[in-house]
Amino acid sequence: MERDAHSFYRPVSVLTLRQRIDDAARGQGRAALESLARIEEVDADIRAMTAVIGRDEAIAAAGAARGPLAGLPVAVKDIFDTAGLATNYGSPIYEGHRPRSDAAVVTLLRRAGAVIVGKATTSEFAYMAPTVTRNPCDLARTPGGSSAGSAAAVAAGIVPFAIGSQTGGSTIRPASFCGIAGYKPTLGMLPTAGMKCFSWSFDTVGLFAATVRDAAFLGQALSGRELAVASASTPDKPVFGIPVDYPWTAPSDHAIAALDTAIRAIEKAGGSVKPVRFDPWMAELIDAHNVIQSYEAWRTLGYEYDHHRDALSALLRGFLERAASIDVDAYSKAFVLMERTRHQQAALFEGVTALLTPSALDEAPQGYDSTGSPAFNRNWTLLGSPCVNVPGLRGDNGAPVGVQVIGAPWDDARCLGAAAFVEHAIAASEEAAP
Amino acid sequence: MERDAHSFYRPVSVLTLRQRIDDAARGQGRAALESLARIEEVDADIRAMTAVIGRDEAIAAAGAARGPLAGLPVAVKDIFDTAGLATNYGSPIYEGHRPRSDAAVVTLLRRAGAVIVGKATTSEFAYMAPTVTRNPCDLARTPGGSSAGSAAAVAAGIVPFAIGSQTGGSTIRPASFCGIAGYKPTLGMLPTAGMKCFSWSFDTVGLFAATVRDAAFLGQALSGRELAVASASTPDKPVFGIPVDYPWTAPSDHAIAALDTAIRAIEKAGGSVKPVRFDPWMAELIDAHNVIQSYEAWRTLGYEYDHHRDALSALLRGFLERAASIDVDAYSKAFVLMERTRHQQAALFEGVTALLTPSALDEAPQGYDSTGSPAFNRNWTLLGSPCVNVPGLRGDNGAPVGVQVIGAPWDDARCLGAAAFVEHAIAASEEAAP
Repeated sequence: MERDAHSFYRPVSVLTLRQRIDDAARGQGRAALESLARIEEVDADIRAMTAVIGRDEAIAAAGAARGPLAGLPVAVKDIFDTAGLATNYGSPIYEGHRPRSDAAVVTLLRRAGAVIVGKATTSEFAYMAPTVTRNPCDLARTPGGSSAGSAAAVAAGIVPFAIGSQTGGSTIRPASFCGIAGYKPTLGMLPTAGMKCFSWSFDTVGLFAATVRDAAFLGQALSGRELAVASASTPDKPVFGIPVDYPWTAPSDHAIAALDTAIRAIEKAGGSVKPVRFDPWMAELIDAHNVIQSYEAWRTLGYEYDHHRDALSALLRGFLERAASIDVDAYSKAFVLMERTRHQQAALFEGVTALLTPSALDEAPQGYDSTGSPAFNRNWTLLGSPCVNVPGLRGDNGAPVGVQVIGAPWDDARCLGAAAFVEHAIAASEEAAP
Repeated sequence: MERDAHSFYRPVSVLTLRQRIDDAARGQGRAALESLARIEEVDADIRAMTAVIGRDEAIAAAGAARGPLAGLPVAVKDIFDTAGLATNYGSPIYEGHRPRSDAAVVTLLRRAGAVIVGKATTSEFAYMAPTVTRNPCDLARTPGGSSAGSAAAVAAGIVPFAIGSQTGGSTIRPASFCGIAGYKPTLGMLPTAGMKCFSWSFDTVGLFAATVRDAAFLGQALSGRELAVASASTPDKPVFGIPVDYPWTAPSDHAIAALDTAIRAIEKAGGSVKPVRFDPWMAELIDAHNVIQSYEAWRTLGYEYDHHRDALSALLRGFLERAASIDVDAYSKAFVLMERTRHQQAALFEGVTALLTPSALDEAPQGYDSTGSPAFNRNWTLLGSPCVNVPGLRGDNGAPVGVQVIGAPWDDARCLGAAAFVEHAIAASEEAAP
């Protein structure tokens, strides 16, 4: 099917959709049925979904739904257990698996009234292996990973929001690549029980939506915390810390250009920026992340490696075989660094509302051989800080490039407010452009 | 069957068993077959086991086993997933459930060479509902909970060691009641992936064995950390901090008498004690524990409550219904207290090797209506400190009463060494008694 991806695939805003459907339409399951119709229309190309509920089930679920998300359709990354839908964790080892219960975040979705219309693709066990999913912004590119299907389903307008996860960069990176909002809440805010564990120190539930305000609204609906952003421009003018450099890796020119565009938009909108310099320990976190994640995955995926290693991808098998050699001394050293820096990071946020960095190294890579690099996400996952991908900018090649707003742990409301400010500033600036 | 419980049911030492069976006997599965025979002999009375492997499987597993636990039989609390054995989490909701994979700690057992001979009873979802299991030290008493079967299986000589868990007092309390060693490692040392989650802030893997040295040996085999206690008396003479009072609840006279006996034995063996006084925040931790556990369980057991509430015990259902009303502000307040006190606790260990307290309020309660109180365990579970139940003492009514050695987080080796010192001191003192 020939389509102009830029105009055909568009995310749907939760807040707009919520206003658009009245109580009667909600009870009839209109939004969920539209979602199923959209899957019929586009998912043969996008390939975001691994399992989909039926029309009758959608109508029944919407009719019974109460709460802030009543009747709204959602896709859940196939790394979370669902009693009613096949759950394969992206691996043939779990072919035909039907868990006996729902993951805790699925319970929270249902209690808030959401209709789970289906499961979305995940990299094998949420690691790095590419999925079959295409990037709706450019079908020749990867949507990123590991939450490939969740990001693509939102970007393609299949669902207004989706649940993903992040252990390295699995929420912020695909959000950046697919041009939508991604929100990784503070570590531990949303429960990971019933999510297939990769690393118990890092596994974090992530949210995808069309806009930052949508993502904040969802975060509030699921956590019960006051996260919603009342209006697109916050009353207080935020101050963003901009790193003078990234001692662990350098972003591409596209990412730097996007960051500069965002900075100009922020200043035009009345916000401000100031340079910040990372302490040397920030560069050590990438290695520490790798050591901790490896040590833990060798144990959490031990059953799969010990009993089904031939059914693992070469990428994951190689990772686990390297992981096997990481001893407890290396792990303890990295763990101590993690504990220490989780406390030291408070200094990063002194005098600034939030930090602003690229979300990823560059635009989504061409092709499907890689899900891209999580280099700009791993340290923040380790630190447990809330992160938001702000969409709205594109690289020279036309694909989305996001900027990342990072807040202090448990300061998610301020982080989301600052991210909404950036989103609004970028949109206002684009409109004003010649 | 009429038996004198005091002499008939005796735990088997891992270290002794390991020396007793040579390589040939190990390869033939002798220890595992003895374990199966012991189940045949006693489990109709004790009722510790929920599922047991067959003889052929035991022989095959033992023949293939390599590692520090090669050929040694172990029972695993039925709150951990096992691909080869039914896993019911103590609930009829999971009748006939066969997980698709093993919990991570089961993988660690197999990698260390242990033969998992069966699953052991757990309170429903590891909460407080009594199980069918009897206390091998006195069949008219509860073995405690929630790791009832694991503690009873070790106390009855079915297996030389067993895996349990602790979210409140589910390892130390049954170890105290059953007169065996119980070891709750530092929070996060052993993986909980594949354990049915109750509270993600507190769930901890626990170990049971005949003696403290056995428990330390197992901890080392599973964690790879240097925990083994080389000899029963440590070269350095430990100093134990003895609380002048317990601001959250008072132990029974039996428990106080046992503690006094342990103190006299310690002093006779060359150790020393000094009084310590808890800061007022220690009394607040019991409430904080309840708030955090409740808030989290309302989410982790949400599927079971929302879809199968009639299959829950009245005890758990009542708990969850109270839990539903705990809001995020109460949770956040308790969470902040937890984070703060996890750091403040270092002061408790200044100038002492470890703390020494009762393990439980009293001897095991008579009858089967309650699993007893976790009042002396919940604060240490919240703080994440390593705890060891030291067996060897009995109350006036003849049932075991343990003393609890508590160490600073990640200082497990010192905590286990100090606990082994106490165990040795008590045994030496008993031998010397008229």
